[in-house]
Amino acid sequence: MALASRHLLGLESVSADDINVLLDTAESLVEVSSREVKKLPTLRGKTVVNLFYEASTRTRTSFEIAGKWLSADVINFSASGSSAAKGESFIDTAKNIEAMSPDVVVVRHSSAGAAALLARELACSIVNAGDGAHEHPTQALLDLLTIRDRMGRIEGRKVCIVGDILHSRVARSNIYGLLTLGAEVAVCGPPTLMPSAVGELGVRVFTRLEEAMEWADVLNVLRLQLERMEAGYIPSLREYNRIWGVSDARLRAVKRDLLILHPGPMNRGVEIDSDVADGPHSVILDQVTNGVAVRMAVLYLLAGGQPEKAEAAKQGGEA
Amino acid sequence: MALASRHLLGLESVSADDINVLLDTAESLVEVSSREVKKLPTLRGKTVVNLFYEASTRTRTSFEIAGKWLSADVINFSASGSSAAKGESFIDTAKNIEAMSPDVVVVRHSSAGAAALLARELACSIVNAGDGAHEHPTQALLDLLTIRDRMGRIEGRKVCIVGDILHSRVARSNIYGLLTLGAEVAVCGPPTLMPSAVGELGVRVFTRLEEAMEWADVLNVLRLQLERMEAGYIPSLREYNRIWGVSDARLRAVKRDLLILHPGPMNRGVEIDSDVADGPHSVILDQVTNGVAVRMAVLYLLAGGQPEKAEAAKQGGEA
Amino acid sequence: MALASRHLLGLESVSADDINVLLDTAESLVEVSSREVKKLPTLRGKTVVNLFYEASTRTRTSFEIAGKWLSADVINFSASGSSAAKGESFIDTAKNIEAMSPDVVVVRHSSAGAAALLARELACSIVNAGDGAHEHPTQALLDLLTIRDRMGRIEGRKVCIVGDILHSRVARSNIYGLLTLGAEVAVCGPPTLMPSAVGELGVRVFTRLEEAMEWADVLNVLRLQLERMEAGYIPSLREYNRIWGVSDARLRAVKRDLLILHPGPMNRGVEIDSDVADGPHSVILDQVTNGVAVRMAVLYLLAGGQPEKAEAAKQGGEA
Repeated sequence: MALASRHLLGLESVSADDINVLLDTAESLVEVSSREVKKLPTLRGKTVVNLFYEASTRTRTSFEIAGKWLSADVINFSASGSSAAKGESFIDTAKNIEAMSPDVVVVRHSSAGAAALLARELACSIVNAGDGAHEHPTQALLDLLTIRDRMGRIEGRKVCIVGDILHSRVARSNIYGLLTLGAEVAVCGPPTLMPSAVGELGVRVFTRLEEAMEWADVLNVLRLQLERMEAGYIPSLREYNRIWGVSDARLRAVKRDLLILHPGPMNRGVEIDSDVADGPHSVILDQVTNGVAVRMAVLYLLAGGQPEKAEAAKQGGEA
Repeated sequence: MALASRHLLGLESVSADDINVLLDTAESLVEVSSREVKKLPTLRGKTVVNLFYEASTRTRTSFEIAGKWLSADVINFSASGSSAAKGESFIDTAKNIEAMSPDVVVVRHSSAGAAALLARELACSIVNAGDGAHEHPTQALLDLLTIRDRMGRIEGRKVCIVGDILHSRVARSNIYGLLTLGAEVAVCGPPTLMPSAVGELGVRVFTRLEEAMEWADVLNVLRLQLERMEAGYIPSLREYNRIWGVSDARLRAVKRDLLILHPGPMNRGVEIDSDVADGPHSVILDQVTNGVAVRMAVLYLLAGGQPEKAEAAKQGGEA
Repeated sequence: MALASRHLLGLESVSADDINVLLDTAESLVEVSSREVKKLPTLRGKTVVNLFYEASTRTRTSFEIAGKWLSADVINFSASGSSAAKGESFIDTAKNIEAMSPDVVVVRHSSAGAAALLARELACSIVNAGDGAHEHPTQALLDLLTIRDRMGRIEGRKVCIVGDILHSRVARSNIYGLLTLGAEVAVCGPPTLMPSAVGELGVRVFTRLEEAMEWADVLNVLRLQLERMEAGYIPSLREYNRIWGVSDARLRAVKRDLLILHPGPMNRGVEIDSDVADGPHSVILDQVTNGVAVRMAVLYLLAGGQPEKAEAAKQGGEA
């Protein structure tokens, strides 16, 4: 079963069926990472270009490993030192890359809508690896896979996203994906970092972290961009930690087991304390492992593979 | 039929026969880009090093894709952050790379003669990917391939290169290649950006763009390096555009069809207007596609392949 | 025969047997560099991450080529522009990489002990590609291989390391490796660049270069970091060259043949003169060639290969 779109621009308009295809395919690929020979022949002769306008070695590396394990040719094209620096427009650079016949372009850009723009203008498949404060769908998919892995299903689970909701593409993509799969979703964070129309997203809003933690099965703790403090959104890191930081004390005050996610990189001692990050509730490193599998699934499904064949390819293994 | 030289340093001393071998090989490889499986086994076990002393993500990417589609190992060695930054000489860095046994070193450098220096000092094949204001032979080859593609042959065609001839390695390589293949060549641009001895190159000089366009079958519009304005070569970008910019109005004033090339990255609204760049006469993105094929041909022929085998390899496809 | 450790953190604690396994394996792999097809299938489906916190294109390239010739997937993860720049701790970045399931992480870091820290914290194999002023074991192994190649054996050879011993991880790793294999080792350099407890390392100390050269069979000439002058360790480059520079005149004053090594990049005219660097005694470029073979051996042995199989793989060639 193929996806409805040949792009992955965000989760806002992806159906529950398609999200489940993506998660199922990722789940079937996650065991590749523990094989002796981490290599499938599936995307041999396909070309994936990582077009990164924002530095993000971690996400780029995850896509690069995913592509290479599927035998694709992976090309890293970073905007610094490129024709972009020589004044070429974003769309001209992208059209030039397109003219080199990639099958998939993975794009990260500081402007919301950058990925959608490429999807309109280019013939190849586009994967949004983060566009401004808009969406970061593969991050949300890996979060969904991690929650489903640990809790059996997403439907009916209570997930609270904590922190800077206003600027967070991770929050936005998670909200869309979670709601589509039937989770109950809440957000919790400083009022200055909360979108004014947050209620319209269909989520509950908690103004106190303690209440949110009482309610939730899962906390997805967002990174606090340190530049928010300089911009006056929060008074100090210490105060942020005191009011909004997920600490072991707060976690123990909740009688139930909470699952703790964080998209990384973490500011230990700010939005999350070390004993939580490294504690038994944390699935932060599972998220990273699942991230490679999710990106394999995305590249695989968009570059022309079929879910059934993924299974077959997996059987064929290192053929 | 092998090439006379195991290097590609420039087109000045390449025979018509060898240019035709390069173009024919490229033409046989251009369809790889539209295959389901873009992979030939031809250069498996060969190592290509991209040694770039000037930032050029676009050209480097084109060579990287070309090498990977031929199954070569491609290594990007950028001078920033390398031993070059630690004060090592260019030739010592290059000899170190040579000692790692590459089959081909693709070099870009701000100094004219850099590629020729490596050809004298190193044992492996050298490809010049741009050396100062000297030559950029793969750019000229892809221009030639694009013109031949569209016009059937190069011989007898009238090609005018427009813009900053003085500083342009693209102009120089194009002039050599075009004249060798029997084209009539002209140049046109501001007197301050015209080499004083331009006549000795065997080209016609137009002082008005309108006259050049009346005469030409093909315009190759050069990028205006914006730093030329600061250096006083031209009074302003607006004036440059008014006098030397290829606009739709100028194009329509010519009764015949002109082919429009540009090596990129473009300054839209300076040397070329958007309706021309995106219009029916423009083959600018074909140039980029042909660029990958030309670089495949160059790597293939220099790393020991034979033109006939290229055909065979193509037939064998993804064997 | 496998190595005692699945990491290569330094030579201090590596046995003579293990060093010999490494050197023998490297010696069996060195001929790969002169093959038509430089490709062994040995590490297909293995993932090697180059985690470089210090710029070193040369060493990274050597590891990258080594990995690719063994068919591994090689991922370059440079700390600049990465999550490290966003304030993530070294160990969090490393744990994130580990969660992407690499088989080997090659790490370079400015802090002594960085590689050992990763070995304690991560599940995969760690190779130290230079940690502060501590160790650089693959550099020492390639020096050992080069000496053994040229002189038949290491035992009993007299090796003097010349220059900035105080800050040199190359010196430290060489001293450990050479002593373990039974060489006699001396050091020679400015008193300000000599560790105070250098005698405890079991090496002889020469205070005059001429005496050292009379005694030695091999000189390993260290790069002078130019920032040492600014820091006041030496009065001037000219004076350093006059007193500690290995010149042709000094070399001719010694009646015997001396082997000249240098880890690169060289400061010609400072620690070594050009006629020595390019002269018949110099094996500086052999070191680079041997470096790729040594890194192939290290990756091969740590990623699960066996020395006997290396031989077999070699026979199987491009299977």
